[in-house]
Amino acid sequence: MSDHHDNPYAALKCVFHEPSRLAILSALCTAVEGLTFNELKHECDLTDGNLSRHLKMLEDAGTVAIHKEFVGAKPRTTVYLSERGRQDFVDYLVALEEVLKLAGKSVESRDAVRDESLPNWKPAQA
Amino acid sequence: MSDHHDNPYAALKCVFHEPSRLAILSALCTAVEGLTFNELKHECDLTDGNLSRHLKMLEDAGTVAIHKEFVGAKPRTTVYLSERGRQDFVDYLVALEEVLKLAGKSVESRDAVRDESLPNWKPAQA
Repeated sequence: MSDHHDNPYAALKCVFHEPSRLAILSALCTAVEGLTFNELKHECDLTDGNLSRHLKMLEDAGTVAIHKEFVGAKPRTTVYLSERGRQDFVDYLVALEEVLKLAGKSVESRDAVRDESLPNWKPAQA
Repeated sequence: MSDHHDNPYAALKCVFHEPSRLAILSALCTAVEGLTFNELKHECDLTDGNLSRHLKMLEDAGTVAIHKEFVGAKPRTTVYLSERGRQDFVDYLVALEEVLKLAGKSVESRDAVRDESLPNWKPAQA
């Protein structure tokens, strides 16, 4: 039995749920060779400070590996998605899809009730 | 043009994205007559303090209306989803679905590359 059997929403309480980190993970998934700090910053529309903070959290979670090197006189930081990070992210997306289905059903059930209770509702002509 | 055309992830930066509030909204969507504080607390697996805090944020956002009354000597708090709240939540779910599709595609593209680069990969027998 899953720990989240009773509360699928609890599965979203993880490092990937924050929108900027979700964007970072999506970008990294398409980049097998990794992405530089500047590429990520641009792609995810983040400031230096924000991206650094998010990458630190993802590194602490074992999601990304960060490689720093000098290219000539310039420092270059490259970020790679770890195998564990990829698997954790896939698990998160599966949980997110389940929650989206549940929420979608809830909205639909309300819409159905609303339609029935419309004051101007008339039965279809025979 | 949408403000989020360039960054669909930014559309998730809203009051509904927090997992407990997502659970509260889903529960309220199915309850046209509203839900009492205790029903919500039980359904969303929250403490009194946490539920109060989330409801305050949702009330400030115009998402819910909160009605307090006495039933005999006992106070009863009932929470209703507002029409605006329902529409805002539907908009959020649409944005979430879009992001999930994007992220899913990213994961798949990486899987495709991984499969091609597997050292033991062999072409299918003719």
